[in-house]
Amino acid sequence: MTDRLNDPGADLQQAARDHLWMHFTDGSAYADSEIPVITRGEGPYVYDTRGRRRLDGLAGLFVSQVGHGRAEIAGAIAEQARTLAYFPIWTYAHPAAVRLADRLAALAPGDLDRVFFTTGGSEAVETAWKLARQYFKAVGQPTRHKVVSRAVAYHGTTMGALSITGVQALKSAFEPLVPSTIQAPNTNLYRAPVHRDDPEAFGAWAADQIEQAIVQNGPETVAAVYVEPVQNSGGCFPPPPGYLRRVREICDRHGVLMVSDEVICAFGRLGEYFGAQRYDYLPDMITFAKGVTSGYVPMGGVIAREHLMAPFREPGSMFSHGITFGGHPVAAAAALANLDVIESEGLLENVRRNAPVFRATLEKLYDLPIVGDVRGDGYFYGIELVKDRETRETFSDDEAARLLRGFVSPALYDAGLICRADDRGDPVVQLSPPLICGPEHFEEMEAILRAVLSEAGRRV
Amino acid sequence: MTDRLNDPGADLQQAARDHLWMHFTDGSAYADSEIPVITRGEGPYVYDTRGRRRLDGLAGLFVSQVGHGRAEIAGAIAEQARTLAYFPIWTYAHPAAVRLADRLAALAPGDLDRVFFTTGGSEAVETAWKLARQYFKAVGQPTRHKVVSRAVAYHGTTMGALSITGVQALKSAFEPLVPSTIQAPNTNLYRAPVHRDDPEAFGAWAADQIEQAIVQNGPETVAAVYVEPVQNSGGCFPPPPGYLRRVREICDRHGVLMVSDEVICAFGRLGEYFGAQRYDYLPDMITFAKGVTSGYVPMGGVIAREHLMAPFREPGSMFSHGITFGGHPVAAAAALANLDVIESEGLLENVRRNAPVFRATLEKLYDLPIVGDVRGDGYFYGIELVKDRETRETFSDDEAARLLRGFVSPALYDAGLICRADDRGDPVVQLSPPLICGPEHFEEMEAILRAVLSEAGRRV
Repeated sequence: MTDRLNDPGADLQQAARDHLWMHFTDGSAYADSEIPVITRGEGPYVYDTRGRRRLDGLAGLFVSQVGHGRAEIAGAIAEQARTLAYFPIWTYAHPAAVRLADRLAALAPGDLDRVFFTTGGSEAVETAWKLARQYFKAVGQPTRHKVVSRAVAYHGTTMGALSITGVQALKSAFEPLVPSTIQAPNTNLYRAPVHRDDPEAFGAWAADQIEQAIVQNGPETVAAVYVEPVQNSGGCFPPPPGYLRRVREICDRHGVLMVSDEVICAFGRLGEYFGAQRYDYLPDMITFAKGVTSGYVPMGGVIAREHLMAPFREPGSMFSHGITFGGHPVAAAAALANLDVIESEGLLENVRRNAPVFRATLEKLYDLPIVGDVRGDGYFYGIELVKDRETRETFSDDEAARLLRGFVSPALYDAGLICRADDRGDPVVQLSPPLICGPEHFEEMEAILRAVLSEAGRRV
Repeated sequence: MTDRLNDPGADLQQAARDHLWMHFTDGSAYADSEIPVITRGEGPYVYDTRGRRRLDGLAGLFVSQVGHGRAEIAGAIAEQARTLAYFPIWTYAHPAAVRLADRLAALAPGDLDRVFFTTGGSEAVETAWKLARQYFKAVGQPTRHKVVSRAVAYHGTTMGALSITGVQALKSAFEPLVPSTIQAPNTNLYRAPVHRDDPEAFGAWAADQIEQAIVQNGPETVAAVYVEPVQNSGGCFPPPPGYLRRVREICDRHGVLMVSDEVICAFGRLGEYFGAQRYDYLPDMITFAKGVTSGYVPMGGVIAREHLMAPFREPGSMFSHGITFGGHPVAAAAALANLDVIESEGLLENVRRNAPVFRATLEKLYDLPIVGDVRGDGYFYGIELVKDRETRETFSDDEAARLLRGFVSPALYDAGLICRADDRGDPVVQLSPPLICGPEHFEEMEAILRAVLSEAGRRV
């Protein structure tokens, strides 16, 4: 009963087929081909079982900010695991969680000072909603329980987070979910129904759609608005100028909490620790995960403003929520070591310095007719593929599936680039490289994308 | 902006007060006292900032099966972190996740062969529900979406898991939740409304209450029944003889899936790898977390029977679910090393050999009138406190709060024992020590409990 696969000749392929239930993976995806098995990573590169090297243009899954193979983080987690691998922060504390809470509070803007740790992003999104609901009950506004989020936005897969998610295809199989979530339009300027040539006017319109959703559903019943600084799903929609500050004003006007879901955008992805700093707004809560540890150990959490904790400091009061692995010592040690690397290597500065080069390199792809839009910010970009660039005509669902899953995805992987070909919205290829990358990596990405998208264009 | 608390003179207490949002903790709990800060662990003991040693009678939070400070697990996770700290199992695989899936499938009974990894227990409970819902839609029974669980049972805190949880006090602040969860009676024999002196008859009655709930709510609308092998919340209710097999038969009769929530009971807690083996039944899914890594790195998951995957192997079919950190390489490495320790040190045998001694040692406390019931199995016991042993009269909510939170909890901690004084049901003290413990540790627990509960009895 020991590990049957320790034998180097063991058949990982067969074991994976027989026992590993892969996530978000078509059950027949590898009926006629090998499952890609990644064995090691070094900096921005990963290697498969055959020793083949690929550029990790997605940082795992928007996760590996400092890159793979960091001995200093491995050392920090081993030391913490030997010292105190686990202890709950239910009525107790331990130094690693305290140190990390203190450090995150110092990094976050304004009075975002209270840190509730979770194990990942879905739990962070759920925690923010639970906090909003209990907070409003505690301050005498018990009818506020709804959430407004945005179309095509992805906020996680546990049932609360899934309810907030604006991708109906991910929800249909699992309904009924948590009631009272409302979707407003997102900031997809490329397909804006109005003001397509005036980003500021479009941003004002899109923010006002959120206000309309609040008003329509009864402000006295709305607890929170969830927005990502740059929306991931749909393919990296940046906020138009002034948009997020306007959303903040709308929330203030209606007494609604603003949640900045920064599971992807925090920890340098946009060149700052938090997206709220990049776009200069102060949300009531920031949710984080992924990049906080660069994925070396799972962790997530919510950073809340001071006023949200106030009602729970009364005797006999408690935010009735907790997670066994919240504030996990080894995860906290990984996060502290990860923040050390980000700081000592100046990775935020690296992103800020190179982001214009990244954009310019990707924009070279505009000479391919299949490339409709290149959009994003920092080290977070989406390339939308179109059937006709002039008319912006997109692909049918079948065409998109054939093009993305049938050709683009495997072709990019075969050509040595890991990125994400996604069709939760219109078809896009997403890039989100480790923050250690520079111009030479952008050129490597561009060359591979150029070859594969050229061929894709010929196949359309 | 580096770690302000690296300075050994730094004020961890103040930083914890200012920034760490503790889980399930009364906001005023430490208004007049220090927050207990645990700094290191060794075997079954942990130490606080003052160097004070305490026996970890709860294994952290039902987590630390192999005890604290295991250099071999620390070494395994460091090696994995250097090699490949993170990569998703969304359309890819990596060796650690494959090896662990293969090993868990071999350990689990019957054709429980398909492993879907999560980051913890709440996500595992959510995954099983999502799988049940999508499975039934895929096999042409789309109206099956409800869940039957048991009164006072705790299944987690994300909104789906919370909906299944049978502790209303944990739900009220967060409703509306996911609809269509139904609670049936649990197996609290000590307060059984019928057959109190006939465990088998009581078990049959309790199982039949689940059947009644299924019938009452329409079998064609019920997707799953969730049961823990030994129910944690309420204080370790073991299953009466024959109960779980009868629940299995009831599920079969009505075409309902049986989920064995083993987040606490798996990996040796009851002397077997899984509770399903301890009580000889075959559920459709087992949820796990906590003990799979002994908490060295957060991890959870679902082990599903073969037939549940079948509809998702069709071309174009997919279980539409995934979690960024699912199957995390470092977590999987921790789990493999943890299973190595359990196996090489014969910890299952240790539990089986010593469990009767544990029970007998705790039963000595029956000479204290405040001890109403000692119940549990393996290394998992609850001691119910009563006002009057003859009548089994319990305490009012206020009395329980004063007794447990006001005296018993801090007194046990001060006396050197970490355990759980809980009043989600009737007041209980729970013990769940690391599986490395033996008679000397049971005696240490008993001595401390005797002193504190004696004093508690005098204070009633």
